[in-house]
Amino acid sequence: MPEKPEISSLTLNRLSVYLRCLRALEEEGVETISSQELARRFHLSSSQIRKDLTSFGEFGTRGVGYDVSTLAQRIHELLGLDVEHRLVIVGMGHLGSALASYFRFNDRSFRVVAGVDTDPDLVGTRIGTISVSDAADLPRVVAATEADIGVIAVPADAAAGALDRLVAAGIRSVLNFAPVTLGEPEGVRVRDVDMRVFLEEVAFFLQDSPASVVSADEPR
Amino acid sequence: MPEKPEISSLTLNRLSVYLRCLRALEEEGVETISSQELARRFHLSSSQIRKDLTSFGEFGTRGVGYDVSTLAQRIHELLGLDVEHRLVIVGMGHLGSALASYFRFNDRSFRVVAGVDTDPDLVGTRIGTISVSDAADLPRVVAATEADIGVIAVPADAAAGALDRLVAAGIRSVLNFAPVTLGEPEGVRVRDVDMRVFLEEVAFFLQDSPASVVSADEPR
Repeated sequence: MPEKPEISSLTLNRLSVYLRCLRALEEEGVETISSQELARRFHLSSSQIRKDLTSFGEFGTRGVGYDVSTLAQRIHELLGLDVEHRLVIVGMGHLGSALASYFRFNDRSFRVVAGVDTDPDLVGTRIGTISVSDAADLPRVVAATEADIGVIAVPADAAAGALDRLVAAGIRSVLNFAPVTLGEPEGVRVRDVDMRVFLEEVAFFLQDSPASVVSADEPR
Repeated sequence: MPEKPEISSLTLNRLSVYLRCLRALEEEGVETISSQELARRFHLSSSQIRKDLTSFGEFGTRGVGYDVSTLAQRIHELLGLDVEHRLVIVGMGHLGSALASYFRFNDRSFRVVAGVDTDPDLVGTRIGTISVSDAADLPRVVAATEADIGVIAVPADAAAGALDRLVAAGIRSVLNFAPVTLGEPEGVRVRDVDMRVFLEEVAFFLQDSPASVVSADEPR
């Protein structure tokens, strides 16, 4: 695998969006596309596209545009999606159950393999394609399913404990949906996704005297 | 209301996170906090905190720190959370139902007031505290409930149509959970939240030769 450059989370997020757009174009049978057309079609910034795509290698041919399938495959590989990742969800209440459905998409890259909860009424039940295990069995569940990504879907006050138990079970990448900021233990990647933050962002624009907003730096 | 400065989506997102942290401190009875301590407690950047909080006015007292309740209230007002926002969810399948539960938090600022779907089997059922209406009735539902924020939870290929119908019904702020980038009609704010993007971000770090990552610019 070639040496990868320094890359920010925001750039990673944009690459994920580009990948989704390129896959849509592939399905339509589009073979090449310019940065301008990619920007126009998907409401993105063409200068940002050019900047992002040159920062880790030259994909485009000047005047012709990008080869859609080649670019998609390169981003797919760069994001590490050429292997299947297995998700274990901690907290199988409303949110955890919804995430189990949501992440069960038609994609070779991610698969929900396990869910755990502390609620005795939930343990042993089936939710979608997985059965819910006891949270106390997390190390065994992670080992048995070879899960490599943890998804935290517990209340805020239980999130830090859930992270500790995931890390103790050998998980190194975690997506945290609890509305609390978790630190990153050594060698572990934690991404906090507090959906209320996005709600508060759109609510901001409903004020009578909205601020002028600069949005060039946001991951869209 | 005072004139508000130019403010980026990323800054808005960080302000939402600070607000959550300050509310947690309030519950603990903490009255003042320094930017350093706020950063340490919640795994944030203290220089980023100082930068964000000075950009729209001076809250802190040098050497003493921030008054927790005053700062929380100022951010609350700046984000426009001093009025109640009403959410209408378009698409009441797994994700829409989960969002209806998730957004039903103990908070005066947001309330899910309606959900619509095109599926005749769902229309008329109750999910949580709301009953599902026919998507064709969206204008009437929005008017009757005075909904002001739309939440799109339909498949990718139905998202653009859902946005059009929300805008036609008078909605000006939209949160889009469909995995597609939607443009912003004139005068309308649309925030795309594709949760797979976050999953791909954490997956990136599982590669054998991870890139060195700069994350200072991300909204945490």
